[in-house]
Amino acid sequence: MTSFDKLIKYFERFPGIGARQAKRFAFHILTLEEPDVVELAELIRTINTSVATCPSCYRFHSIYNDVLHCQICRNESRDRSKLTIVERDTDIDAIERSGTYNGLYFVLGGMVPLLDSHDIKKLRGGTLKHLVAERAEQDLAEIILGFSINPDGENTGRYIEMLLKDTTTKHAITITHLGRGLSTGSELEYADSETIKNAFINRS
Amino acid sequence: MTSFDKLIKYFERFPGIGARQAKRFAFHILTLEEPDVVELAELIRTINTSVATCPSCYRFHSIYNDVLHCQICRNESRDRSKLTIVERDTDIDAIERSGTYNGLYFVLGGMVPLLDSHDIKKLRGGTLKHLVAERAEQDLAEIILGFSINPDGENTGRYIEMLLKDTTTKHAITITHLGRGLSTGSELEYADSETIKNAFINRS
Amino acid sequence: MTSFDKLIKYFERFPGIGARQAKRFAFHILTLEEPDVVELAELIRTINTSVATCPSCYRFHSIYNDVLHCQICRNESRDRSKLTIVERDTDIDAIERSGTYNGLYFVLGGMVPLLDSHDIKKLRGGTLKHLVAERAEQDLAEIILGFSINPDGENTGRYIEMLLKDTTTKHAITITHLGRGLSTGSELEYADSETIKNAFINRS
Amino acid sequence: MTSFDKLIKYFERFPGIGARQAKRFAFHILTLEEPDVVELAELIRTINTSVATCPSCYRFHSIYNDVLHCQICRNESRDRSKLTIVERDTDIDAIERSGTYNGLYFVLGGMVPLLDSHDIKKLRGGTLKHLVAERAEQDLAEIILGFSINPDGENTGRYIEMLLKDTTTKHAITITHLGRGLSTGSELEYADSETIKNAFINRS
Repeated sequence: MTSFDKLIKYFERFPGIGARQAKRFAFHILTLEEPDVVELAELIRTINTSVATCPSCYRFHSIYNDVLHCQICRNESRDRSKLTIVERDTDIDAIERSGTYNGLYFVLGGMVPLLDSHDIKKLRGGTLKHLVAERAEQDLAEIILGFSINPDGENTGRYIEMLLKDTTTKHAITITHLGRGLSTGSELEYADSETIKNAFINRS
Repeated sequence: MTSFDKLIKYFERFPGIGARQAKRFAFHILTLEEPDVVELAELIRTINTSVATCPSCYRFHSIYNDVLHCQICRNESRDRSKLTIVERDTDIDAIERSGTYNGLYFVLGGMVPLLDSHDIKKLRGGTLKHLVAERAEQDLAEIILGFSINPDGENTGRYIEMLLKDTTTKHAITITHLGRGLSTGSELEYADSETIKNAFINRS
Repeated sequence: MTSFDKLIKYFERFPGIGARQAKRFAFHILTLEEPDVVELAELIRTINTSVATCPSCYRFHSIYNDVLHCQICRNESRDRSKLTIVERDTDIDAIERSGTYNGLYFVLGGMVPLLDSHDIKKLRGGTLKHLVAERAEQDLAEIILGFSINPDGENTGRYIEMLLKDTTTKHAITITHLGRGLSTGSELEYADSETIKNAFINRS
Repeated sequence: MTSFDKLIKYFERFPGIGARQAKRFAFHILTLEEPDVVELAELIRTINTSVATCPSCYRFHSIYNDVLHCQICRNESRDRSKLTIVERDTDIDAIERSGTYNGLYFVLGGMVPLLDSHDIKKLRGGTLKHLVAERAEQDLAEIILGFSINPDGENTGRYIEMLLKDTTTKHAITITHLGRGLSTGSELEYADSETIKNAFINRS
């Protein structure tokens, strides 16, 4: 296998990229100016040293002055009584963009699939359990399950509820689910019954 | 223009149908058995006499024993303190399918477009105003705006609120909007900020 | 079942129409003016009497002065040495729009599916065989297989070739297939190998 | 801007990649094992030294033993009397996959847009002219215009014909276009008139 083919193989492993687009990426690299090629290669080689996982919420963040925790976890104005558990980093970005939530986060690292739960070990369930037990002694009052509205998301929610049951019961911590209803652009005529039901329940 | 071309023109006026599909419909009619052709023609010719507009909610309903009002409006177990205003008949079907609402309805007959409001006369605004004034004297307590979540739907909501303001203020009738949040199948990462905001507000 | 539901059932049988759009069609009929409803019903009821199948090419055509044959078959300037066999009427429309062909047609009435050939009796194979035998005595020189480029179209082509083999051999009638190559809008990069192969073979 | 953001910016410049997917790529890099990260970075940094432009056909090819020309141009069994001019490397891949052509290629490096021809300098028109003049003295007999079937492709074809006119006239070199007709999957009913016209002309 030539270097060119090896490079294409790496691009094929990029999320959502097939053989044809991987090849286009390789051709794209060939058209870059030398300084750009060097910088891109260097960024890829060293990105692990400039990005770290926050030891509190487990999201990736750029390291700055050897500070371990991410900007959100360090921010003292955030409301420490609330903890939203999400599947992955990009969910946090979406919530932050909405400018609506001022609590903390925890990145679980994946979902618990409804049909195939053997990958549960890859998730940070144990870590979450310890963290919640610790925070429960302080000021944690509400855990928000920030998962997608589909069978896997619901299954993950049930898993988290069981996992944390002892602690949440003992410390009277509330577990809440994100509100359901009509999304932006929803047309009543095409909405499913579950969504309409929630739209009526959550009317205001 | 031949009869065949005339028939195609009628089919082109069917909602969502272009020239090509209209032609296919005409060919389809030619393949029907004689009794079916006769029955279809008769159904079209007489549908107006077997379907009427309910004089209370203004949705179409099949006439049965010369009863004027539709099944929902006649149903005494429906909660007359609630009135949901929708754009069109099919919205009622969607809500009924969800089995979540037990009040009454009113079909406005369209939206008030944000940018072009000259078609407002085609809507049943005046009729609604009278109906609400009348019901307000009885047991009406809540008006639910059941419009789509888009600029026209929101504009129609504002129009209805202004239209009914005097009556709702005088009789302390609440006007509510359908709850917003994550719909079935929504992924947090791809949700817009407004939807995420409502999902957090409506969490439970 | 109410008349309204019956009408919806008829619309559901229209090609490409599902339950939801069928309902919209029924509501559309309710919004038509009385004279339009009457005319549409009458057109549907009588379309069979104003449209006939041409006894030569078997396409539908509007009857005019009790003339049996369609305009194309009656047109003496058309080249009777060529016969294009197509699946359905709308294929003839597409070919006529291109203004490139001056021969005659025959509507087979369907395809011979590759995997399930039990519907072969619904096709006009026998009629075609007789017609070609008759024309072969006159001036028929070329039969053009005007089928879609997919497995069923190719299978139908093979069926026709076998069906007419005796006659075409005896009278030295050529059977041709429509040329393959790059269609309008085709990009070389995304074309399949068979299409590229034909594009090179048919280069000019 | 952090290193992470810089890396995302590079990925945003990849063909067909938006901000969101660029971010996913960056997260993907973070999940790679150390040896993979190092190899990927090294491949990107050095790809220019292992891939070269063939000085004859101008496509990219992996350098092997310091051989300058690509495998196709070096292959003595290829038919040197034919030269297919294409827009880009991936077009050659598609043609080679079809296994139908045994001549040589030339990568023009782009199209001549119908409406905006100021980028013509970026194309290898001058190089092509010299190459054809040289080959014309040897055994070149046919130039095949292998461009997409759209206005820009046709315009590029006209540009090439004018560019090479003197040489092709003097040496009686034929210029051909790829054959047009029905592509795999084409349905007659939906084909445009130009495609149907060519399908009839190229019937066989």
